Amino acid sequence: MSQEKLLPLRHKIDDIDAQILVLLNQRAQVAQEVGHVKAETNAPVFRPEREAQVLRSVADRNPGPLQSVDVQTIFREIMSACRALEKRVTVAYLGPAGTFSEHAVYQQFGHAVEGLPCASIDEVFRAAEAGTADFGVVPIENSSEGVINRTLDLLLQTTLRISGEVAIPVHHSLMTKDGTTDRVTRICAHSQALAQCSAWLNQHYPNIERQAVASNAEAARMAGEDPTVASIAGEQAAQTYGLQIVSAHIQDDPHNRTRFAVVGRLQTTPSGKDQTSLVLSVPNKAGAVYSLLSPLASHGVSMSRFESRPARMGAWEYYFYVDVEGHEMDEKVARALEELKQNAAFFKLLGSYPLSL
Amino acid sequence: MSQEKLLPLRHKIDDIDAQILVLLNQRAQVAQEVGHVKAETNAPVFRPEREAQVLRSVADRNPGPLQSVDVQTIFREIMSACRALEKRVTVAYLGPAGTFSEHAVYQQFGHAVEGLPCASIDEVFRAAEAGTADFGVVPIENSSEGVINRTLDLLLQTTLRISGEVAIPVHHSLMTKDGTTDRVTRICAHSQALAQCSAWLNQHYPNIERQAVASNAEAARMAGEDPTVASIAGEQAAQTYGLQIVSAHIQDDPHNRTRFAVVGRLQTTPSGKDQTSLVLSVPNKAGAVYSLLSPLASHGVSMSRFESRPARMGAWEYYFYVDVEGHEMDEKVARALEELKQNAAFFKLLGSYPLSL
Repeated sequence: MSQEKLLPLRHKIDDIDAQILVLLNQRAQVAQEVGHVKAETNAPVFRPEREAQVLRSVADRNPGPLQSVDVQTIFREIMSACRALEKRVTVAYLGPAGTFSEHAVYQQFGHAVEGLPCASIDEVFRAAEAGTADFGVVPIENSSEGVINRTLDLLLQTTLRISGEVAIPVHHSLMTKDGTTDRVTRICAHSQALAQCSAWLNQHYPNIERQAVASNAEAARMAGEDPTVASIAGEQAAQTYGLQIVSAHIQDDPHNRTRFAVVGRLQTTPSGKDQTSLVLSVPNKAGAVYSLLSPLASHGVSMSRFESRPARMGAWEYYFYVDVEGHEMDEKVARALEELKQNAAFFKLLGSYPLSL
Repeated sequence: MSQEKLLPLRHKIDDIDAQILVLLNQRAQVAQEVGHVKAETNAPVFRPEREAQVLRSVADRNPGPLQSVDVQTIFREIMSACRALEKRVTVAYLGPAGTFSEHAVYQQFGHAVEGLPCASIDEVFRAAEAGTADFGVVPIENSSEGVINRTLDLLLQTTLRISGEVAIPVHHSLMTKDGTTDRVTRICAHSQALAQCSAWLNQHYPNIERQAVASNAEAARMAGEDPTVASIAGEQAAQTYGLQIVSAHIQDDPHNRTRFAVVGRLQTTPSGKDQTSLVLSVPNKAGAVYSLLSPLASHGVSMSRFESRPARMGAWEYYFYVDVEGHEMDEKVARALEELKQNAAFFKLLGSYPLSL
């Protein structure tokens, strides 16, 4: 009878759980002392760089058999619970509750937080600026619509800083009105989504025309009205536009992600693996962009993202959103930024923050 | 300088974290031994009753300062991570990803699971019945539309059993087209939502007529077309129907919840605090329901829910969905069920499972 073998093992687990429970509360007591010290100097409760270090450290030292990613999930909740004893951090996000944005909140802060769903990205910024929320979480780029323009606009104006980045996996599906591709003559989606599924499309539907449209939602709407159209979109769209999924998870990269920025009034210190986001502009003349960016190369700072977008108003025709590796307090980054600032017609540092896990 | 005071405290925390990390992996090793024993007898990896006991036990023994609910969140993830070493449980749910249903999956199983989003409740059942998924998570009742008829229908037919229940908090908001109530002459919502907000409505809008409509979504649609209508609905509706939120979180009970059932091929054993769900029918004659239920009273079994719904077909005019306290293996419950079965024209045991936390 297996029960006889199971019982002593379960007692062992109960013993270990009791020890973990004691240690968790010891940790919480020390965290409370940290809180008292911080209160004396008005230091912030949430330090993303410190939490990132703890999460990296437990993954590095994890002897197994537990998977490091699972250990990090556990420790994220441990830190969240300890932090909540000092203060339950309030985080504004693009509502409603039960969306990817809320997931992103938990992925950054753990579950022991107060979520504040907002009706718009503007409201998220306002809540964090006004102090109604300690932080805001806003989508910055997704794989079906590209960058979120409103977020980029608001980052340009806000007094808030980016203090973290969260990435959530995203899946594309092929869908049609009747769940088959028998009558389909073209496959529609946002160009980015078409690109992300191209290997799969080449393999399965090499002879069907592909058409880039304004957004995946638009493609899904078209497919809902026209049985000769197949659309690529997130599963949500199937429900919204009355479509049937033909094939799920067709994107070539299974790690396709939506990125969120965590914004707040906090200035982080280096965590050891950081990223810095900034916005620049130059007068529109040939070679200007190249020479603008030369300080990065000359100081050995790697650029991890570069995004240009037309300015809606003002004297510069383009804004450049740039992510570089390292923290603004790292010596070589600081020097490169200083030079960039001198050369740029417009320069705004959006923030330095730990690289997402 | 506070850094001098903080550093030794942080070292203390790092020490404690190192000990926790060792214990977590010791626990995982014992859990692997449990897995080997279970494999010999083909016993299931996920035992909801055992996990419920562990979560109750850590809450009972929690010395503080950590809050028990936060300790439970941590241990849920610990068990999830350990379980994943035996097998990453696959859980089908009503998609798309990023919805309350997915939240419910994590709340029951922790994050170390494989989620399988399905396009319909039917598909969730099929996936769990066919073994594509180990479990399914389906909405059973929500506070804006009442019971989910499709789930109840499928529970009637399925070979699966309910092995758990998850409750997710739900909030109602008052919303109109322009975000004010200046022109509003009536407030519309599902009757259940109107009832759940009645104290708040009495206080804030005692003189505006209330009108029950088919669903909160219908009310929101009406409000989107008619500026004299205010609707009560979840925040999601504001986005869908282009409404502005006038007041958020207006339900009288802040613990308003949506319930989900976890269905699977598993038969649970008693956890100490359980609930049993069943469906009954009687020939439609006066007093039949009363006498049908008398075995519960005579054996001292409390009924926690009673829901009647018209049968779509078949010889019985009503099905009664009944939840009782206790496990089908508890002696008095077993006796009461035996008698119920003898008296009922139709009897189906849906399952016994741990009461949700």
